Amino acid sequence: MNCDKCQNPAVAHLRYSDIRLCKNHFIGLTTDRIRKTINKNKFFERGDRVAVAVSGGKDSIVTLRALHDISNKRGLEIVGVTIDEGIVGYRPESIEIAEKTYKELGVDYTILTYKDRVGKSLDKIMERPDISRACEYCGVFRRRLIEDGAREMGADKIATGHNLDDEAQSIFMNYTRSEFPRIARSGPKTANKEGFIPRVKPLCNIPEKEVGLYAILKGYEIHEDECPNVANAFRLNIRDHLNLIEDKYPGFKFGIYNSAENLRSILADINIEKNTLKKCEKCGQNTSGKICKFCELKANANKE
Amino acid sequence: MNCDKCQNPAVAHLRYSDIRLCKNHFIGLTTDRIRKTINKNKFFERGDRVAVAVSGGKDSIVTLRALHDISNKRGLEIVGVTIDEGIVGYRPESIEIAEKTYKELGVDYTILTYKDRVGKSLDKIMERPDISRACEYCGVFRRRLIEDGAREMGADKIATGHNLDDEAQSIFMNYTRSEFPRIARSGPKTANKEGFIPRVKPLCNIPEKEVGLYAILKGYEIHEDECPNVANAFRLNIRDHLNLIEDKYPGFKFGIYNSAENLRSILADINIEKNTLKKCEKCGQNTSGKICKFCELKANANKE
Repeated sequence: MNCDKCQNPAVAHLRYSDIRLCKNHFIGLTTDRIRKTINKNKFFERGDRVAVAVSGGKDSIVTLRALHDISNKRGLEIVGVTIDEGIVGYRPESIEIAEKTYKELGVDYTILTYKDRVGKSLDKIMERPDISRACEYCGVFRRRLIEDGAREMGADKIATGHNLDDEAQSIFMNYTRSEFPRIARSGPKTANKEGFIPRVKPLCNIPEKEVGLYAILKGYEIHEDECPNVANAFRLNIRDHLNLIEDKYPGFKFGIYNSAENLRSILADINIEKNTLKKCEKCGQNTSGKICKFCELKANANKE
Repeated sequence: MNCDKCQNPAVAHLRYSDIRLCKNHFIGLTTDRIRKTINKNKFFERGDRVAVAVSGGKDSIVTLRALHDISNKRGLEIVGVTIDEGIVGYRPESIEIAEKTYKELGVDYTILTYKDRVGKSLDKIMERPDISRACEYCGVFRRRLIEDGAREMGADKIATGHNLDDEAQSIFMNYTRSEFPRIARSGPKTANKEGFIPRVKPLCNIPEKEVGLYAILKGYEIHEDECPNVANAFRLNIRDHLNLIEDKYPGFKFGIYNSAENLRSILADINIEKNTLKKCEKCGQNTSGKICKFCELKANANKE
């Protein structure tokens, strides 16, 4: 089959809009989409220092390179934050790719480790018989360390590599768990809120497969393994079901994504956050309770 | 395995609460749940004339019999409305069961046919080459005919047999299609609104399997076939995926159901209905446009 825009052979079929594209037109469309997302949601202002959270996987490498590509023209300064959870056989290789990319682009970066900041590597934490859900701990720790790294690098914004599939999965899980406040405060760009660095997601409406294809066609070096801890997570199960539904009803994931956008605009008029934010008694960061989730889980991970 | 409440053999394992129950305790629990749903949501007032929409399947037969059982004590008058879509090989047998049950209980009833009210049976409508989605037409027609039948029977409320699975599927589809106004106005009991008879769903938090088991254990005669038109519907696909997720994460469907309850209470403070209701220029019933969906599809079904 040929490209719908020229006579070159098609490399991608976007079933949700029934378009076939060659390498160049696919790259062009994807680059345009990323830029439109950035513009439409007003992610950045001139002079912003943007910390990209880079694991070395396709999503974060594409985000880093896409923002670096536009940084001169937009007056942005790009820096990198990489988190080393301490997962033997998985993370070292991806950190190597992240560092190689930072160096190639001449981007300043910092690497924060669970060992230094939490007290133990994730592998060590998972040795505890009373802790079984790696993702619960890792999600909270990684989020905080990205925030800390970005702050230490003087960043005004944090950019993450979340793609359409990540977003659709989160939205679906939030719907089924009644997490409407979480839906209200998430989205492509989080609100400016004292004590938090706003987060932006330039790939939020690009399907995961297309991010992967884009990385390959652009010749980017990426880390392709899946985290060994994720195997039993609820998210993986949901991911598989959403993929099967998408396969039968192309555009389904965009439907979920758009529904959350709509719900957010409906909820914008009402304040559904029941708790006013307080400061954690241990670390001083924002929390809804006395002790934040990071300090609570950190204490669990390190208790004798 | 034995019942968790007595020493009799268990006939049901409710995995979401890890309870095993014998025949008597399962029947007792299910009857209690139906009554609690009726009480908690204040479905009825003394003197209400309640039209039960009865197809002859397990859900509607259980609803009819459950409401009939409490009708004397609660001062309710129960009547029946049955819709004959005109589906050869499927509907006649279920109507026979509905009529037998009405007669056994001494309940007044009416049967409305698509042939009389729409102009053609569903089988005839589906012969048109330009109409392929039976459920789209049938859903609109059946809903209106139930409303008409209930009004002609002088009913104050309409009771339908929607179970937890029906509700979870609808909620899920509404989430993914941004149908938040629909979520806001649905639920176990629809609001009193001029021109509509309020609808109640006594089985809304009973899983489908349990409704079926209850009907069997009570010895009710029910029609067990599935409608021959439903095979390719989006809803069936969603049903299968929700069942697989429930199987792995028991209680998942209750989670979806509860999330819609929560969203409804969040949305209660804001008016998300953008259109004020008008009267259909053809039939005079409520509609958001000039012509209601019923009249639009009826005209399609009958055009030369």
